Amino acid sequence: MFYIVGVGLGDVKDITVRGLEIVRGAKRVYLESYTSILPENKIQLEQFYERSLIEADRNLVEQGADEILNNADTEDVVLLVVGDPFGATTHTDILLRAQDLKIETKVIHNASIINAIGCCGLQLYHFGETVSIPFWTDNWKPSSFINKINQNKAIGLHTLCLLDIQVKEPTWESLTKKTKVYQPPRFMEVNQACSQLLQIIDNNEFDGKNYVSRETFCVGAARIGWPDQKIVAGTLAEMVNVDLGPPLHSMVIVGTLHPLEEQFIKQFTIESK
Amino acid sequence: MFYIVGVGLGDVKDITVRGLEIVRGAKRVYLESYTSILPENKIQLEQFYERSLIEADRNLVEQGADEILNNADTEDVVLLVVGDPFGATTHTDILLRAQDLKIETKVIHNASIINAIGCCGLQLYHFGETVSIPFWTDNWKPSSFINKINQNKAIGLHTLCLLDIQVKEPTWESLTKKTKVYQPPRFMEVNQACSQLLQIIDNNEFDGKNYVSRETFCVGAARIGWPDQKIVAGTLAEMVNVDLGPPLHSMVIVGTLHPLEEQFIKQFTIESK
Repeated sequence: MFYIVGVGLGDVKDITVRGLEIVRGAKRVYLESYTSILPENKIQLEQFYERSLIEADRNLVEQGADEILNNADTEDVVLLVVGDPFGATTHTDILLRAQDLKIETKVIHNASIINAIGCCGLQLYHFGETVSIPFWTDNWKPSSFINKINQNKAIGLHTLCLLDIQVKEPTWESLTKKTKVYQPPRFMEVNQACSQLLQIIDNNEFDGKNYVSRETFCVGAARIGWPDQKIVAGTLAEMVNVDLGPPLHSMVIVGTLHPLEEQFIKQFTIESK
Repeated sequence: MFYIVGVGLGDVKDITVRGLEIVRGAKRVYLESYTSILPENKIQLEQFYERSLIEADRNLVEQGADEILNNADTEDVVLLVVGDPFGATTHTDILLRAQDLKIETKVIHNASIINAIGCCGLQLYHFGETVSIPFWTDNWKPSSFINKINQNKAIGLHTLCLLDIQVKEPTWESLTKKTKVYQPPRFMEVNQACSQLLQIIDNNEFDGKNYVSRETFCVGAARIGWPDQKIVAGTLAEMVNVDLGPPLHSMVIVGTLHPLEEQFIKQFTIESK
């Protein structure tokens, strides 16, 4: 059997009881290491799970699926993913590959930022399409996500913005070489995302009507599910100057606030702090 | 401390390790019993958690919050909710009440249908606003949710439809009496939701442009996260005749399918079965 087990958001104890039983009973356990920050705590996970974990970088999960799935028809193999197994498309890919190989699969769900963001008081059913905000480079400054934010805002919906994570990215110089040299991991912070958004607005890089301005209310969320979780709400212009501390960060561009949402979110506003 | 702990979707072992520790160490543990079906298995939960649970119906959670929160400033009190704590607005309410009473609060996240629905192969970030489809009565046939489905479909997004649950609803006759008599619990099935949707379309009960027809592709999902989870995909007209078995059911009105989504969902289509 091939299992994908979600390990939740922060604490090593966020795995479910069922997930832990499967991990402890499996022949091989891989830890997906490129869509979140948890793998930095691999040793803690190994201690708590009482077993060794094999690190699975993007290359192994995307190109080496058959290596992961090797013998999974006769023995139990687990891929641990941060959050919920269906947070990233690559996990759908490997499930399809397992099915092609006639390997039975099972998924153990867990919390992901997609539902845990509800802790800021915005109701989950008032969210529209989720967007990803990528790191800009000197030559590559994509801005099309603003159109999705506008589509959501036009009908009153909130937009969850997932901020870029770059783990195990080869340096530009080593791209063509046999031995890759990796850049240090980078995690986009909320103030950087706000700064990029403000530039997009200033440069009018949107299609159709724009609903996002310096005064747009948004929520910055850091380390959701961790003991030191931090949430701050304010205007886009204010949030550029807010430091939410270590990663992971995500943010919400707020649509139309309902009274209960407004009441709950008050505790996080810059004025209230 | 007042804890709200998500217990996940199906199995008693879907609680997180951290959640279980909190439950076992708490003074009082309430089990929210009106937004899902899990409480029918209260005895199993009590056996696995090794402690007794106090059933909390809608009335207690909404009107009797102070009873639940009694002494939570000095001892640990837990409210267990099915799925994730932020799936229902009433849980936001009780957190606000706790804050008013200067009681510390903590939330333990878990999977909810909002993210677990990803198991049908539709990418979570392609979902728009979630809608609820209520049971119709002879005199009350709300249809406005079709407008939200259309808003989502107009921009290519999928719509998660949460189907009505009626647990501990007093009978009409006993509404004005001191002693309430309760109706048996009811859980809407996917075929019933499809039938109501088809009636709405036939009666042209929508504002603006309609994107939903008998040929609209949708996904019925039953008992997500349970061992006997069942997913069937087909047109609205086809799904009216599909029996997905016992509750809970939910469904997705599919927006624009991306190639990977199309590939994954194929296994669930009526033709493939």
